[in-house]
Amino acid sequence: MTITITAFERSPDGGRGLARDMRVRWALEEVGQPYDVRFLSFKAMKEPAHLALHPFGQIPTYEEGDLALFESGAIVFHIAERHAGLLPADANARARAITWMFAALDTVEPPIFERTLSKILERDEPWYEQRLRVLESSIRKRLDGLSSRLGDADWLDGAFSAGDLLMVTVLRRLHGSGILEEYPNLSAYVARGEGRPAYRRAFDAQLAAFTAASTG
Amino acid sequence: MTITITAFERSPDGGRGLARDMRVRWALEEVGQPYDVRFLSFKAMKEPAHLALHPFGQIPTYEEGDLALFESGAIVFHIAERHAGLLPADANARARAITWMFAALDTVEPPIFERTLSKILERDEPWYEQRLRVLESSIRKRLDGLSSRLGDADWLDGAFSAGDLLMVTVLRRLHGSGILEEYPNLSAYVARGEGRPAYRRAFDAQLAAFTAASTG
Repeated sequence: MTITITAFERSPDGGRGLARDMRVRWALEEVGQPYDVRFLSFKAMKEPAHLALHPFGQIPTYEEGDLALFESGAIVFHIAERHAGLLPADANARARAITWMFAALDTVEPPIFERTLSKILERDEPWYEQRLRVLESSIRKRLDGLSSRLGDADWLDGAFSAGDLLMVTVLRRLHGSGILEEYPNLSAYVARGEGRPAYRRAFDAQLAAFTAASTG
Repeated sequence: MTITITAFERSPDGGRGLARDMRVRWALEEVGQPYDVRFLSFKAMKEPAHLALHPFGQIPTYEEGDLALFESGAIVFHIAERHAGLLPADANARARAITWMFAALDTVEPPIFERTLSKILERDEPWYEQRLRVLESSIRKRLDGLSSRLGDADWLDGAFSAGDLLMVTVLRRLHGSGILEEYPNLSAYVARGEGRPAYRRAFDAQLAAFTAASTG
């Protein structure tokens, strides 16, 4: 059965792998599953046809036969559960890898994503500078804990897993902030993720899509 | 094997079921698993013994034999996967229930939790009212989508699932804000969750723990 995902017709990040379809593309590349992409304008994302797939009118979605899913975390988990390569076979190791998936999205991502939003939407607000400092302090608290736990290991718990995949996509959003560089082991961890062949294929595919949309 | 979770010795919410151990207690009650609770002071949460269990120094954690997990979402998922009652047996329905787990924590919770934080930490700021309006607008966008999708159904996708359990705990944080009441079907949905016997048992247990700590 063909897998079809949705992505931005013109990603706000300029195709630099920050849109959340990147996680799904990367997971599909890791497990060797081909996929089609349906590109959506911002207008189409809020229309009934897409809202039937995604109640919050966002991307990505995932369709395969009569199954339709949304939420990048849930889609990556679905791929990891159906195909070998993203979750360990041992039951306890698998539960720990899933814990890192939730930790990436629920504990580490929120202040990092809030910082991005704030930089885009709140730059002219009276609270901007103060809020940025608060957010960066929250981010550092999370990175302190993450850096201590990672230590000098390659990945968060044994072999590369869907937990690492999500964590790397979350941390990548700090590129250019100077914050990630304060944690050499986390910088190396992100570079290790970005160096995986499956990551490169996914990144190149979404950059090519953006470039085609912008020049077409 | 005994299940042991951790919780606040003195929950900042006064034992009203907003601390994240509530989700885990509720899930354990739904599947009929007994559990022990280890209570932690704010100081103990940041000490090495707890950081070994939870790299970000938070609650809840989950210990069972040689398995140790953190992140309320991951713990609820682990319970749902091991015991009947929180995830449907049909593969596609199961994947959709898991999607609602991620949707609750990654899409609906962030602006709701930000509002709580803002009300605690930013109340004296000159821009507080303005920021609150921005956050409440984000919350309403999420609730619009959720309310449309739920319609007049009892639960988000067929029978009650771990997705509903997490979504109800996320929405409960809006009690007293007036926002939930703008969406009668969501108010009824939250009341339906709070009316489940397993919810009541979990709520009563954590309220009793708070009361004992405060009067002991």
